[in-house]
This record gives sequence, structure tokens and C-alpha cells, in this order.
Amino acid sequence: MNATYVALEGVEGSGKTTVARAIGDRLVDMGVECVAVREPGGTWLGEEIRRLLLHAGDMTPWAEAALFAAQRAQLAAEVIRPALVSGRWVVSDRSFYSSLAYQGAARGLGVDAVRSINLAALDGVVPDLVAVLDVEPDIGLARQTDADRIGKEGIEFQRLVRDAYHALAAEEPRRVRIVDAAQSPTRIAQAVVSMAEVVGV
Amino acid sequence: MNATYVALEGVEGSGKTTVARAIGDRLVDMGVECVAVREPGGTWLGEEIRRLLLHAGDMTPWAEAALFAAQRAQLAAEVIRPALVSGRWVVSDRSFYSSLAYQGAARGLGVDAVRSINLAALDGVVPDLVAVLDVEPDIGLARQTDADRIGKEGIEFQRLVRDAYHALAAEEPRRVRIVDAAQSPTRIAQAVVSMAEVVGV
Repeated sequence: MNATYVALEGVEGSGKTTVARAIGDRLVDMGVECVAVREPGGTWLGEEIRRLLLHAGDMTPWAEAALFAAQRAQLAAEVIRPALVSGRWVVSDRSFYSSLAYQGAARGLGVDAVRSINLAALDGVVPDLVAVLDVEPDIGLARQTDADRIGKEGIEFQRLVRDAYHALAAEEPRRVRIVDAAQSPTRIAQAVVSMAEVVGV
Repeated sequence: MNATYVALEGVEGSGKTTVARAIGDRLVDMGVECVAVREPGGTWLGEEIRRLLLHAGDMTPWAEAALFAAQRAQLAAEVIRPALVSGRWVVSDRSFYSSLAYQGAARGLGVDAVRSINLAALDGVVPDLVAVLDVEPDIGLARQTDADRIGKEGIEFQRLVRDAYHALAAEEPRRVRIVDAAQSPTRIAQAVVSMAEVVGV
């Protein structure tokens, strides 16, 4: 089985963190070595940028998009690429598809412009499978425990993000899969790992 | 006279900060209101990013380029555009031309790729005049007082940066001007303001 890079995506409160853990458990049971990462974060620079993005003051949409790209470039080079090269899977809580949905679509910068910046910054380190945990934004927001700056944007913003994920799945049906987030984390983890085994081959 | 955005560029130790001050003095003498800015910095986000860029740990070239673009987007939207709209001149110690020379050329990311990111992030707020204070890199490095992470790259790197500025001036002869940095700051300030009066009309 090839080393596979799986990214979990979804609106606030869609259960990405819990599902990431369940996928990690399933891979361990299968004897597959894996590395868990989250965005923004995962490196010294990423954690500094995380603090600026989620807990500091207001910023323009392009500043936000460029900061996400910066932490992502560092994470790809320092953690994700070496893990994949050494044969380990990578399970990531968010990826550049978050920027396509949040900054590109919901903030209105344009999906293509945001994709260009990220593809340049990532230098080929892109997810093999993007599992979008799909939930009605009102249910997601009700589940949300600790809203950060972006998580506080409200229901209309979350709807734009969800629509963007659906559009991305329609555009790239092999890579981007919509998964019903109402299922149990264990069941979702099983489904995502099965999809990844096919995509990663 | 139109509000004009003047950027000073050059290798380490070329005297940008001193010349920026001399240009500010000259504009005050002429009764022209102006705002002085520096990159990276000038906003709450820019100063946080400055600390990461210049004084923190290592980072990949794309992370560096994206961080420069992020602080620049914030500075353009929060400070430079409002100043120009209100009729004040802007005198900036560095601009996105630094990223073209440093990250695009000297770090090898490609001038076009770095230009694309920056033009997206700046949303039209670009310098009317870019004055490159030209000095031999070894003289510049000898003058340098307090080297930061990027300033410590050494003579070969500074040579690549200087060559890149010359290439940019050849490509955009109206906007990008090479100025001999051996002249006195007052004389350089006079020359730059005269060029800016022509360009800004």
C-alpha cells in the first residue's frame, strides 16, 4: 500500500478532529504507520501563525490567505513530504482545500487565485484524498465548542463554505468526497480509509 | 501634484532608511504631506510577521514569500491605500520589489510566481516609483549595522539580489530606477522626488 495523504475538511463543528483520531486508530489496527497533523499549525512557524490567524486582531482577506499558505508551505516541507517519503500515511485536519472554500469562495478572493498561491507554496505536496465531513451549518455551529476568529463568522458564511466544498467535489470527484458527518466516527473512519486505499494505489 | 507612492529598494546597507528620512524632510519642506512606512511592518500584523521573518527560526522560501505577501496585503489596505486616497504621498522602505529580488530571484522561487502572489495580495496598490539604491554588495555588507536572518545570507546572495534589481530596472525602465547610493542622502532625496513628480503626474 502506498503512503497516502488524507485531508479532512468541513464546516465548523463537522467533527474533523474526532474523525482524524478514529482514522489514526484504524490505521494503527491495520499496522499502517501514520502521522497526524492539523492546519494551521504543526511546525514552530505554523503554531505562531495559528495564533495570529485564529486569536489575534482583524486582517484583510488576502493577508489571511497568504498566512494560511505560509504555514502550509512550512508544514508540507518539514513534516508531510518527509513522512510520505518514508512511507508513512498523513492524516490532516484541514488542507489547502479549506483555503479554497473559506478564502477563495466564502471571502470572495476567487478559488482559482487562492489555488494558484497554494499550489506554488506546496510544491506538489497535495492530498490524495479530501474527505469533506458534510453537515448542515446550523447543526455544526450548535456543536462548535470553542469558536475562533474565523469560526465566529456565522451561519451565512458557513453556508458559503459548505456550498464551496460541494462545488469542489463536483469538480474533482475522484479526489474530493462528500461524507455524511451524521455517521459514527468509527464508521466514517472505515469509509475514508477504504476510499484512501483505492485512491492511493 | 498627485499623491505618489515611492518605494526605496536595495541590498543590505544601501542606505534606504536614511534616504527615506531625507525624502520625508524634503517633502515637508515642499509642503507635501506624506506617510512613511517600512516593510515588513507598519500594522499590528506586519510587526508580528516582521518578528517571525527577521528574528525567528528557519523557514522554507515559500513560507517566507507568503509571509512577506501577508504583511504587505495588510499594509496596503490599512495604511497605503487610505493615505494615497486622502492625497498624501507614501514613502516606503522596501516594497513587493524586494520579494521579486530576494525570494523570486535570489531564493530561486521565480520572479513571475512571486509577482503573481503579490499582485493578487496588493489589489492594485503598487509603487509609482521604485528607487533602487545601488551599491556594491561588499560595501553594503560592511556598512550593515544589525544583520537580521535574511541580511545574514552573505555576499553571493546579495549579488543575486543586486543583479535582480538591475534586471527589474531593465524590464520596467519607467517605474524602476537605479540610483547611485554613493551620493549624499540629501542629493538622492532631491533626485528621487524629482523623478516621482514626473512619474506621479
